[in-house]
Amino acid sequence: MVLLKGLGRKYCHSADTVTVIDFTDGLKPASPDGATTIGTERTRSDIPVNALSEHLLTREYIERQKRILSFLEKDDLFNKKTQYSLSRPDRYRLGLARAKRAKQFAVKHGWDEDVYKMAEYLIDDVSPLHLHLHMFMNTIREQASDEQRAYWLPKIESWEVIGAYAQTELGHGSNTKEFIMHSPTLTASKWWNGTLGRTANHAVVMAQLKIPDRSNGKLRSFGLHPFIMQVRDFVTHQPPKTIIVGDIGPKMGYASMDNAYMLFDNHRIPHSAMLSRFSRLDLETNEYVKPPHQYVVYGSLTAGRVNIILQARIVLARAVTVAVRYVSIRRQFVNRDTPEAKLETAVLDYPTVQIRVLPLLATSFALHYTGKAMKQLFDRVRSSIEQSGDFAELADLHSTSLGLKSLCTTYATDGIETCRRAMGGHGFSAASGLVRLRNDYGSRPTVEGDNWMITQQVAQYLLKKMKTLEVGSGTASTTIDITLQRFLQASNKTPHFPVLDYDEAILAAFEWRSSYLVSKAYQAREVRGEAHTSLLVQFYRLSNAYSQSILVNNFHAIFTNTAGVSDKPPQGATEVLHDLFRLYALYTIEAEAKEFLQSGALSMDVLELLPGAIQSLMDRIRPHAVRLVDSWGIPDFLLDSALGRYDGKVYEDLFDRAHRQNPLNDHTFNNKWWSDEIELGSGDAGKILAKL
Amino acid sequence: MVLLKGLGRKYCHSADTVTVIDFTDGLKPASPDGATTIGTERTRSDIPVNALSEHLLTREYIERQKRILSFLEKDDLFNKKTQYSLSRPDRYRLGLARAKRAKQFAVKHGWDEDVYKMAEYLIDDVSPLHLHLHMFMNTIREQASDEQRAYWLPKIESWEVIGAYAQTELGHGSNTKEFIMHSPTLTASKWWNGTLGRTANHAVVMAQLKIPDRSNGKLRSFGLHPFIMQVRDFVTHQPPKTIIVGDIGPKMGYASMDNAYMLFDNHRIPHSAMLSRFSRLDLETNEYVKPPHQYVVYGSLTAGRVNIILQARIVLARAVTVAVRYVSIRRQFVNRDTPEAKLETAVLDYPTVQIRVLPLLATSFALHYTGKAMKQLFDRVRSSIEQSGDFAELADLHSTSLGLKSLCTTYATDGIETCRRAMGGHGFSAASGLVRLRNDYGSRPTVEGDNWMITQQVAQYLLKKMKTLEVGSGTASTTIDITLQRFLQASNKTPHFPVLDYDEAILAAFEWRSSYLVSKAYQAREVRGEAHTSLLVQFYRLSNAYSQSILVNNFHAIFTNTAGVSDKPPQGATEVLHDLFRLYALYTIEAEAKEFLQSGALSMDVLELLPGAIQSLMDRIRPHAVRLVDSWGIPDFLLDSALGRYDGKVYEDLFDRAHRQNPLNDHTFNNKWWSDEIELGSGDAGKILAKL
Repeated sequence: MVLLKGLGRKYCHSADTVTVIDFTDGLKPASPDGATTIGTERTRSDIPVNALSEHLLTREYIERQKRILSFLEKDDLFNKKTQYSLSRPDRYRLGLARAKRAKQFAVKHGWDEDVYKMAEYLIDDVSPLHLHLHMFMNTIREQASDEQRAYWLPKIESWEVIGAYAQTELGHGSNTKEFIMHSPTLTASKWWNGTLGRTANHAVVMAQLKIPDRSNGKLRSFGLHPFIMQVRDFVTHQPPKTIIVGDIGPKMGYASMDNAYMLFDNHRIPHSAMLSRFSRLDLETNEYVKPPHQYVVYGSLTAGRVNIILQARIVLARAVTVAVRYVSIRRQFVNRDTPEAKLETAVLDYPTVQIRVLPLLATSFALHYTGKAMKQLFDRVRSSIEQSGDFAELADLHSTSLGLKSLCTTYATDGIETCRRAMGGHGFSAASGLVRLRNDYGSRPTVEGDNWMITQQVAQYLLKKMKTLEVGSGTASTTIDITLQRFLQASNKTPHFPVLDYDEAILAAFEWRSSYLVSKAYQAREVRGEAHTSLLVQFYRLSNAYSQSILVNNFHAIFTNTAGVSDKPPQGATEVLHDLFRLYALYTIEAEAKEFLQSGALSMDVLELLPGAIQSLMDRIRPHAVRLVDSWGIPDFLLDSALGRYDGKVYEDLFDRAHRQNPLNDHTFNNKWWSDEIELGSGDAGKILAKL
Repeated sequence: MVLLKGLGRKYCHSADTVTVIDFTDGLKPASPDGATTIGTERTRSDIPVNALSEHLLTREYIERQKRILSFLEKDDLFNKKTQYSLSRPDRYRLGLARAKRAKQFAVKHGWDEDVYKMAEYLIDDVSPLHLHLHMFMNTIREQASDEQRAYWLPKIESWEVIGAYAQTELGHGSNTKEFIMHSPTLTASKWWNGTLGRTANHAVVMAQLKIPDRSNGKLRSFGLHPFIMQVRDFVTHQPPKTIIVGDIGPKMGYASMDNAYMLFDNHRIPHSAMLSRFSRLDLETNEYVKPPHQYVVYGSLTAGRVNIILQARIVLARAVTVAVRYVSIRRQFVNRDTPEAKLETAVLDYPTVQIRVLPLLATSFALHYTGKAMKQLFDRVRSSIEQSGDFAELADLHSTSLGLKSLCTTYATDGIETCRRAMGGHGFSAASGLVRLRNDYGSRPTVEGDNWMITQQVAQYLLKKMKTLEVGSGTASTTIDITLQRFLQASNKTPHFPVLDYDEAILAAFEWRSSYLVSKAYQAREVRGEAHTSLLVQFYRLSNAYSQSILVNNFHAIFTNTAGVSDKPPQGATEVLHDLFRLYALYTIEAEAKEFLQSGALSMDVLELLPGAIQSLMDRIRPHAVRLVDSWGIPDFLLDSALGRYDGKVYEDLFDRAHRQNPLNDHTFNNKWWSDEIELGSGDAGKILAKL
């Protein structure tokens, strides 16, 4: 036993563990403790957790997750204990060290890229190599010519070349066989480019290709094209004098990521830098050969958005997992109508907590089935294009993925915060596991298409559909055509769908409301000629209504006879999934009641009954809540949450993090105002100032 | 000129400044730059900014702010440049150093407590001394006997004794003339107590007073009472062995604050520790003397909530200031209906940005007038009680302040995030100035009464009022009585108030909807006897409806003839304030349309017209937006925002923070995966691991 400096705490060293010895060691939580309570919760439901997990994630995924976890848990570098206490520069250092260690594992154990990505997901840093592994590598693979691929890919896959992704202006000097990059103003600086701030030595730069016209020498634009360029030296890791590049500084999240600013001073890159799989510029004649179809640009963006929907699902599931487990364990106040009951009520038994957490639980499943459907649609569209040059469904896929990106990332971002608040005071602690998730994921609503701005593209697509139907020039071919046509044929009615009685009425009500909003926007824009900009709020609401309709349709499809075997949920889970489907739908109808009423899809009488119906569904789902979140199979290692851990040992873990793992408690401070010393007895007056 | 290590950047040292010399030095933002744009914005409106500022804040406040600012701006310790990059322990150290420096100023310059609090507000750390200066000091002043005051206050005011505030269990051993504090379980640990984690040497502990009954020796409870106790030694700053106390670890915000856990092992405190102004325990006879009225507990809590409303107002104003200035400067996309226009549209001209930011601007004013009214009501109630023992309005003040705490802090918390997202990508940067505000203020919805839980007290109060009226036993004396009575006399009607035409119709519509919800809840609880718990969601909505009604009433009062001279806004601002009043009201009616429709306060016809009316109001307010936020007088020092700075130099400041002030750019990293070194050339392999 030793007494450590200034701590007043005794430690017992044995083998490789250090244990604090004080009177708290023998203390246990009050009975019933969290482990007991959550065990009881799990006996209240007979949902087949493993079967539901496999239905959601596939057996292959679950096994891969388990396997990679066993590597990460054994290496101290991936221990998350004190990372919340680190400075921003140390958070970057840690992120870099982890990305490198995972690569060492990958090389040693022959991991393929899917396995590495699983490791990246579980490590749960925003990796400083992220852009290298995704946007940069994908762009080279898709856009480089065979010759360029042969040169670059080995260097990129071996991480000799580490790349980022940026957009910029570009001018081309015709006589020099070089391109010139220049930033004439501060506002021309690139900004936010991940991996480029401190990590990368190369970048793919998407730039306006400008070529001097042979007749008059004036620059002509040929649109965005990808170029690969070196930004830092292989040995010194310094940029050339004609490039200024650095990290933009601290952010709301993404502490371990180096987002960049970059400016060029007439920086020259060779002709060979232009990635020329689809379009190219002849070296001798300066002749431009244009790409075959805009899909080459669309494709990877749409693929990215499909992944964003799948990510939104798991992010929301993660927040809901923490919240459901904690509010099952946490008790507060004895029921005032039965004061003789000694045990306080579990917080999840309060309707005020249920109404926040359980609809989000339902939403996580709604997002899942639509993410999955979008992935299937994307694969089908890509193979149609590749096999038969059939672009028919591309526009539909493109606009649907935009609307869903907007809605789903808003759901997940807001959902994390709702879960956080539903947990009361402890939700504010980093030990909740939701703080970093909230701050990192908070980027989603504004990146890769701002959630408000992109919805105008969805509305434009729908208005175009409506126009075709209105002028009678097209046949109803896609689902949306048929839906709109059905609405047009009955649009003078107020159908008042019996949404409490039939699933079909729910689907019809969502379609009706969405079609009504399309029709209203069409009248404003196409018939009355109102300005596009003046309708943007309408467009946003329309896009959300349309996307919600897609979510209920895809969710409901798993209960129909047409669902494929692999799409059907396991027997024992069907009933509660159906309750979740109805909860998502009815909760959304109530939240958006105004539009459902205005369109005539909902009557005031049914609206009055909705709160009761929603509460009944929540009562039915309540006993299954813990098993439902268990089915998402999110490991404790990823959750990093005292409140949401699988075994329910909430208070033991909270105390352990505070009393044994918090570095601030290793210091004793000088609280005398007349002394500038901060650490008691250290004579460190003024030291903190040097860090400012 | 010197070349600093590994930076590839040249610096020029002159006198006391260091300037980077590279090709970016001469770069300016594209024209028109932010300074020009925001200047133009200010010429578009003739709102008398200074007069409106004085109306909102008082001349005295503005002068005090300016005076204190001049102290803080001159001292490097208050420079916020790199504080976002610090580790959590350093954030605490910095917070402590700043609190001490401000105290040094206070002593040197003879600042009173109001002045010190202004400094605390401008320093904008959550001060590790905060609880000492507020809850601890206030409790001693209010609850200590004259003798105790004489002993403690000099030590407390000189910061020899530094105190915190906690609640705990307490047992009293009758024979020893001591109180015994004991924590039998881990869950009995105190948690979250600010200032107690590392800073305080004393605490006021609110504890259940338990005294053995003389007849049978069993412990009897006498309710919560305050005790003062020492928790750390004056010299060593260590706790005694019978106390375990420490900091709970990192949180979503409050990095500079040491929130505590604390456990007792049969810790004994003397009889004199009980603060005995209002109730006491006789040393010899063990006789308990009870306090005269529960106001002694109510009073300071209610005062706290009134301050929370005033704080919510300024926090929201701060977020809106940043957002309005930035979205006035930021341009994006040329208007598609007028593509010949060369200049891109200012983001604030998009309805999708207006609908997020301008109603929040209106809300900041709504919160102001209600905060002010609540302060006046509180002062009146306190003086009634002190002068004539009249407690008549206390219950009303208590429940109103609870409902408003819930609504106003939700508005402000959500409002910061809405502003952040409305600014697009740059809102995610710490340079927005909203990141720390969002994380610190995020504690508000769950502390000092969870925003959902406390609303049941509001509902209970209103149901009691309704019961009195229904059984006809009381006379309508308070405003809420009169409102409910008016509703009861006409409750079979559907009044369909013409809210677009008359202010009075707006006030009536809010009152009607709120009374309707009271009546509905009354029917459920009192008539049909439904369980209290089952009605909690209804209670929450009811409380919000009631609070919104208070907000529109107080806002509208400034336009009536009965408003006092000091309450009337300056001439040139009345019209736009009236537009803001209507915007807050109509926006709220649309957002809560369901309840307005259900109650019959609103017709479907008027609902259809609301979006147009809201847009017209936003069009009218738009040119005044920058001057309106200027009127809040929030200094750049506090905003700490590149995006929201007064002079509009957004891009210059963003670049300065990234290129010249970001410590991460002083390091060059080793990105080779096969090397464990992190800082290039440092040989630091494994160093980051030691920090985990």
